[in-house]
Amino acid sequence: MDIIYTEQHRLRNSKTELFGGELVPPFESPQRVETIRQQCLARNIGEIRPPNTYSPELPHHVHSAPYVQFIADCWRDWQAGGNAGEAIATCWPSRALPRQIVPKEIDGRIGYYAMAGETSISAGTYEAALAAAATAATAADLLHSGQHSAFALCRPPGHHAATDMFGGYCFFNNVAIAAQQLLNHGAARVAILDTDFHHGNGTQEIFYQRDDVLFISLHGDPIYAFPYFLGFADEHGTGAGEGYNINYPLAPETNFAAWNHALQESLTHINNYAPDYLLVSLGVDTYCKDPISFFKLDSDDFYTYGKSIAGLGLPTAFVMEGGYAVEEIGINAANVLEGFSAGQ
Amino acid sequence: MDIIYTEQHRLRNSKTELFGGELVPPFESPQRVETIRQQCLARNIGEIRPPNTYSPELPHHVHSAPYVQFIADCWRDWQAGGNAGEAIATCWPSRALPRQIVPKEIDGRIGYYAMAGETSISAGTYEAALAAAATAATAADLLHSGQHSAFALCRPPGHHAATDMFGGYCFFNNVAIAAQQLLNHGAARVAILDTDFHHGNGTQEIFYQRDDVLFISLHGDPIYAFPYFLGFADEHGTGAGEGYNINYPLAPETNFAAWNHALQESLTHINNYAPDYLLVSLGVDTYCKDPISFFKLDSDDFYTYGKSIAGLGLPTAFVMEGGYAVEEIGINAANVLEGFSAGQ
Repeated sequence: MDIIYTEQHRLRNSKTELFGGELVPPFESPQRVETIRQQCLARNIGEIRPPNTYSPELPHHVHSAPYVQFIADCWRDWQAGGNAGEAIATCWPSRALPRQIVPKEIDGRIGYYAMAGETSISAGTYEAALAAAATAATAADLLHSGQHSAFALCRPPGHHAATDMFGGYCFFNNVAIAAQQLLNHGAARVAILDTDFHHGNGTQEIFYQRDDVLFISLHGDPIYAFPYFLGFADEHGTGAGEGYNINYPLAPETNFAAWNHALQESLTHINNYAPDYLLVSLGVDTYCKDPISFFKLDSDDFYTYGKSIAGLGLPTAFVMEGGYAVEEIGINAANVLEGFSAGQ
Repeated sequence: MDIIYTEQHRLRNSKTELFGGELVPPFESPQRVETIRQQCLARNIGEIRPPNTYSPELPHHVHSAPYVQFIADCWRDWQAGGNAGEAIATCWPSRALPRQIVPKEIDGRIGYYAMAGETSISAGTYEAALAAAATAATAADLLHSGQHSAFALCRPPGHHAATDMFGGYCFFNNVAIAAQQLLNHGAARVAILDTDFHHGNGTQEIFYQRDDVLFISLHGDPIYAFPYFLGFADEHGTGAGEGYNINYPLAPETNFAAWNHALQESLTHINNYAPDYLLVSLGVDTYCKDPISFFKLDSDDFYTYGKSIAGLGLPTAFVMEGGYAVEEIGINAANVLEGFSAGQ
């Protein structure tokens, strides 16, 4: 399985995350993908290759042009505004502030485009996010060229990024860009399976009214878990998208048996949909020792579920999302990939 | 003019405000009202007296019961959640997260009830906010008992607090509670004039569908200034409230001549409304040296406009809102009160 990787992910190296009322070093760190890369090398998962070159307009596949421009300009504008720290939103169009007019001041503009406030924007964020999008698009290109599988080892992650909102460590929605890349290449249907602990709210939002992408997410029940305000079981899609969005919100302490039950149902849905390709938003924060999540999967379970996914027999790309137990995310991600290879 | 004041404001003494991507000492500090109190004493503005005693349900005048309970419980729940810092929202029902279900986890619950993220909740916040509401309600009671004027020297301020949202340093909407207190005492109509630099979004929201309160706000144009997503000129009220909400968004660098033009129009509107009482949301962050605002009023201008307001001949209570140039806010607030007294 080809592994697409670029060192440009290191450009995303912010110093601060707002967590528990403090500014702490971000959980979403460069070390994460380095740990995974080392495991992939050690276990000979596949060849590591760089992403293809794309236009800076690649994120326009699924994001609005003003939003992409905001991500490109934010750090410069934030500094020009005389702010001493990294760029973090403090005001947004809340329930009590319903006017959705894009402010001219950067303090307001960042709030307009922020879906959450833990994530700072800093030097290099845009460049790294663009490289991550290219990494995912390359995985799509590889499937299109006939490869059966690929692994986009990208960061920053993407699945929380909506059409015009960033947050949850995400800026451009890598897996959604990969799906659109496949559709642009002529695919009729693409399925996205999101195994990250957190609901893939951005991916859901992007494809919510469409039937050419089936989105299925297994995640911590939003009544208890980030992103809180999307990801409930009654969100089925609208219009042409009705029936093509499926959420499995799962309770605190969910173990592999319960998680796997939802996975097997998901695989049946995917099989019935008969997509041309499968994209997996691969988060390994379902792991029992993850510091910000509440599922109870063991490392062996990741191998087991990778093997299950292979049973679909679909050309499949894995696109890296979350996972914050840095020591074990390499093991767990590589286990999914090895399980998939064993199941083919 | 009686000045209502209680030392309980000191219970609101948070350590952190999220500003420019850093956690800094809050602009909204206990020293603010102490500076004003000292000026009032030095210039013999009036007798300083404590607030009356009210039920803890006083905020229910204008806030939802679940919201008041959240403010009461937040700090305890936040600590119980294992958070090390003060309580600050990091996730909210943003444009991309439209489900408005109150989360069970405190991290999500605080985001549901937050209109902005600069403001932390800490030990004593609820108690101080309740005392501020009592301070404003006492000013209302004094007008009802026949006094011509009163000054509620309260903090934390209130005008950003909406029916069920806190932020912008505000928790309970003191001026709105005072207005409702007057209506409960039998008043037919109350006018609220908001002279704070920032739009009084909470007060607007609370009375937006009602004709028994006329709300007029002069403030920094939200396209450039907090709270950004409310306070535009086309917000006139809805239903029975149509025509009873008037906003004057004013440009950066607005001087007293331009500000006073909007004030004089406001006074005409208030006169035409013929209210039983006038409440002034008194912010002095319109001052030229205010650190977080962009109007250009001098200290003398505050005296001038206090005198103009007195020209209405209405029983009037001033309710303290913002102002962050700590050295001069005492001078500027006392100038408004002295101008008012001179204009009677």
